[in-house]
Parts: sequence; structure tokens; C-alpha cells
Amino acid sequence: MHELVKKLLAGDRRSAARLISIMENNAPEKEELLAQIYPFTGRAHVVGLTGSPGAGKSSLADALTREIRAEGQKVGIIAVDPTSPFTGGALLGDRIRMQEHATDPGVFIRSMGTRGSLGGLAQATRDAIRVLDAFGCQVILVETVGVGQSELDIMYHADTTLVVLTPHAGDHVQVIKAGIMEIADIFVINKADLGGVVQMATSIESMLDLSPRLNGWRPPVLSTVAHEHRGIRELWEAIKRHRACRRDNGAAREREKAHRELLDLVRRQLEELVARHLNARCGLVEQVATRQKDPYTAAREIMAGLLAVGEKAQLAKFARGKEE
Amino acid sequence: MHELVKKLLAGDRRSAARLISIMENNAPEKEELLAQIYPFTGRAHVVGLTGSPGAGKSSLADALTREIRAEGQKVGIIAVDPTSPFTGGALLGDRIRMQEHATDPGVFIRSMGTRGSLGGLAQATRDAIRVLDAFGCQVILVETVGVGQSELDIMYHADTTLVVLTPHAGDHVQVIKAGIMEIADIFVINKADLGGVVQMATSIESMLDLSPRLNGWRPPVLSTVAHEHRGIRELWEAIKRHRACRRDNGAAREREKAHRELLDLVRRQLEELVARHLNARCGLVEQVATRQKDPYTAAREIMAGLLAVGEKAQLAKFARGKEE
Repeated sequence: MHELVKKLLAGDRRSAARLISIMENNAPEKEELLAQIYPFTGRAHVVGLTGSPGAGKSSLADALTREIRAEGQKVGIIAVDPTSPFTGGALLGDRIRMQEHATDPGVFIRSMGTRGSLGGLAQATRDAIRVLDAFGCQVILVETVGVGQSELDIMYHADTTLVVLTPHAGDHVQVIKAGIMEIADIFVINKADLGGVVQMATSIESMLDLSPRLNGWRPPVLSTVAHEHRGIRELWEAIKRHRACRRDNGAAREREKAHRELLDLVRRQLEELVARHLNARCGLVEQVATRQKDPYTAAREIMAGLLAVGEKAQLAKFARGKEE
Repeated sequence: MHELVKKLLAGDRRSAARLISIMENNAPEKEELLAQIYPFTGRAHVVGLTGSPGAGKSSLADALTREIRAEGQKVGIIAVDPTSPFTGGALLGDRIRMQEHATDPGVFIRSMGTRGSLGGLAQATRDAIRVLDAFGCQVILVETVGVGQSELDIMYHADTTLVVLTPHAGDHVQVIKAGIMEIADIFVINKADLGGVVQMATSIESMLDLSPRLNGWRPPVLSTVAHEHRGIRELWEAIKRHRACRRDNGAAREREKAHRELLDLVRRQLEELVARHLNARCGLVEQVATRQKDPYTAAREIMAGLLAVGEKAQLAKFARGKEE
């Protein structure tokens, strides 16, 4: 076993930090290290926090951390910003308010930016979660700032997803649009001191009335004032209830996640292959552009180039096998 | 040449309608027919209309059609609704107001829904555009209702993209978010009689000040009142100006489109292949889910199953070639 992994499993913070950097930078040794870490994962409860900018996700993560620490559990916090190419230091500077937890050895905080690739960010986040899981964090909070597909990809790896809203009319519509409605396990109306909470909660509840219930869980709608630590205990209790409910269908869920991740990994490798192959065959692109060849015929030719050789070889193998 | 294609090229409406249905339903004969149609495409000017629901895209398309018909050009209209699984009849019923054009032989109207696959919709729309192109439509208006990636995919096939807005504060923010800003060739503030146009235009112009200009084209910001036919002539003139500007870099643009389409087609075929392959290897998924094997190792094994055979065969071929 690699020295870094050994130290990670022994609870060494610096090793955890270095391993997350390796995951984030997609370093050559990444896959080997992950293979060693992977058997020690699957124990942490991953809580995702998503919602529109300004909804107070970070304050909520802070308040939740305080609540969880009071129970003595080790907490990891990953702040993901798909809109930022910056990482680590830059965002951490922004988290001055986190100083309360920064000196607490039971809390590990990390920020992650895109480094140019959205797909890569979801994958890096997934692997950072694994590092913190093996590190011994019992709860891992993942907050993300972005909108759209990358956010959904990241949230898919959470065991419990909180959709954080403010009591403000516009937000309500946005939630439905972005397809976030479907991924919510718990709705949190933060900044509840602003008023308008009841209307907001009512409209969410009426949406929920129309949604099918998954595994008997109906997402509760809670209200909080994070900076005053109001409603945080109730939120943490709801998260634990959801966890217990999830555990009952744990195996199916793990299989689904594994299936999705494999599909994703293989797809991305194939895409790279196709892009390279297409660059090597720019004559074909030219023929399509000038209407000498239609796109479907050209696509078939590319597929043939990629795969037919393989098929032929397999047929040949099969034929040989018969002869022998 | 297939009878349907012959009739299409001769301007037969019913053949056009049937061919679009074939493209939409992904019928077995689709690729063969498209190969025959493809050489007769690339002549129409494709104008995309996008923007938030309620911005009046359909009314604008109607008004533009009137303007273009006055010049005697043949017009195709494709209304795409990624949020609707329904197609043809259902949406056409909604287009009663289009009656003005319904009896005009110089106008062809068609609605398209998802039929369950978003990726398929972008491709079906692309091929429907080709049918209308070969049918002799000189201008094809493509309006889409959806938000997000599918809309962007569809708009990518337009030569000129109109982003339609209403003078309402909220819209402005939405545009930036959805990444639509970057694809706009012309901004249209419709329902300009509602007031607030100047503020809206000013904020768009200031965003444009910060954006890089593509091929020397700065998107103009126009205002219209579609149902009163106000500002429509100016809009049509702007579209023609953009067309002339585009024509100068026509070849590069066609190559880019062909490259993108090929990548897209091959990618989708490979994805199907991978999904099938993965279903056949559900034991691997189980191993990952239960932490017996890490996802990267499993993904490598799948890739090997798909491709390594092909590589080996190629190496063997290479070795044989040397020996001979």
C-alpha cells in the first residue's frame, strides 16, 4: 500500500489534502491510489447542498457542522464552484467565517474549482468524497454554487440532497426549471427571518403533492436562519431520518451509482478516442461540409474504423476456437 | 432515387411532410433517404428563435413570415418543443393563429416534440431542416420553447440566431444564466409596447461591450411589437445583413458544423454500444457497488473488452504487413 494511503487511513490531514489534490489534478498516479482507497469507502453519509447563489448554502453548512460536531462526529466539507476555474486557496480565502472550524481537527474543509473541465469536476468531487470517506469523516457536506447539469452530476453522489431556497418569489420558479426539484430529499427555506416563508412552503408542498414519492420518502420542507442557528437541529434530525430511510434500499442505490459512474467513465474515454480519430480524418469532415458525403454515411465509416476491426478479430477468434 | 425524394425536389408538400415524419420517427429508411436529400441542402437560410416562454416567439415567427412572403420567398417554420412528448397534430392545433399562412402554398409549418429523447430531437430537427431545404424553402424559421442544452444543440444549426426577450427585469438575468447570450446573433425585445425597453436594451448593450466580437459582427438589439407588425421590417433587414456577414466565413462554418455533427452521431452510437455492453456485464457493476473492484479498474476492463481486440488485430495486421 502506498505511503500516502496508509497515512490517510491513520487520519493524517496532510495526506488527505495531498490525495485530494492528486484527484483534482488528475495526476498519473490517481487511478492506482484510488484503487487502494476504494475498499475503505462507502461509510460516510454524504449530504449535498444546492440552490441558487445567495441562498446561504455556506452559512448553512457552517451551522450544520457545528451541530454535527456537538455529537462528536468527524465532518468533511467540500465547496464546489463550477463557475470558477480557481481552486483551493482562492475560495478558502473567501471562507474566513469558517475560522471557527479551521482549528478543529474534527473538521476538514476543501474548495474545488473547474480547472477547465465540468465533467472533470464532477469526477474530481466524487473522488475527493472518497478520500474524505477513507479519512474517517462520518458526514461529508458538499455544497455547490453552479447551475445546470454539472451541479446535478455532483448532487447525484450525495446520499441526502438539500435544496436551499430563500423566501423570495423568483426562486420558486427557478427550482422547477433547473430540474432540481426532482433531486431534493429535503427542502430548506433559509433566511426565514425575511418573511414570506409560509407562501414559499405552501407552494413547494403543493408541488410535492403532485410528485411521486420515492421509496416512501416525502421531502420535508424546513425553515432555518443559519446565522442564528435557528432550525438547524431539526434539519440535522431530518437528515438522519432520511439516512435511515435510504439505508433500507442501500444496495440497489449503490448498484445504480456504480452503473452510472462506469457508464460515465467509459463514455468519456470513448469520446476522447473519437475526437482524436476524427482529427485524424479531417478529409471526411470536409466531404460532409461540402455535401459530397452525408453525415450518416460518414459516421458509419468512422464507427467502422473504430470497431469493425475488433469485431472481425472476435469472429476470427471464434472461428479458430471452433477449429481447434 | 427514391420516389419520395423525387417528389420532394419537385416541390410536393405531402412528400415533404412524410419525409419529416420519417426523420422524426427515426424510421429504418431514414439514413438512405437522407443520403439522397443531402446533396440538395445547404441553400436555405436557417433562422433560429429562442428565448423564455411567453416572450412571443411564435407571434414573431408569424410576423417575420409575413414580411418574407411579401418578398416572394418560400418559408419553412419548425416549432420545436423539447418539453413536450407530443408532436405534429397536437402543437399544430395550438397554432390556429397561423391560419393566415396555412393556406399559403409558399409556407410550410411543422411542429416537433421529443418522442422521449432530447438528443434525438436535436437530430430530428436538423434533418427536418434538410428536408425543407431540399423542398425549396429559402428561409427556415426554427423556434424552440425549451431551456438548456437541447435548445443550444438545436440553435447550433441555425445560421442566424435570434434571442427573443420581453422588457421585464427577470428575463435579463435568465439569459446570461442559460448560456444563451453567447449564441445570440440578434437580440429582439418583443412586446416593446409594455415599456422598460430602454433599460433592457442598455443592459444588453453593456454586456455586449464586454463580449468579444465574432467575425466583426456585433449583435444588434432591436425592439418589436410582433402582433402589430412593428419593427419587423427592421428585424428582417438585420437578419439579411447577418446572413451576408456569415456568408464570408461560410466554408469554415460548414466544416465546424460537419465536425460537430459527426462527433455527435458517433458519440451516440458508441454510447448505445457501451450501455448494451454494460448490461451484459452487470457482474462488474455489482463488484464496484460492493467495493470489490474500483470504478477505474472496471472502466478499463470495459474499454478493453470493447477495443483492445481491435487494437490487437491492427497490430497483427501491421506485423503481417511487415513480414510479407
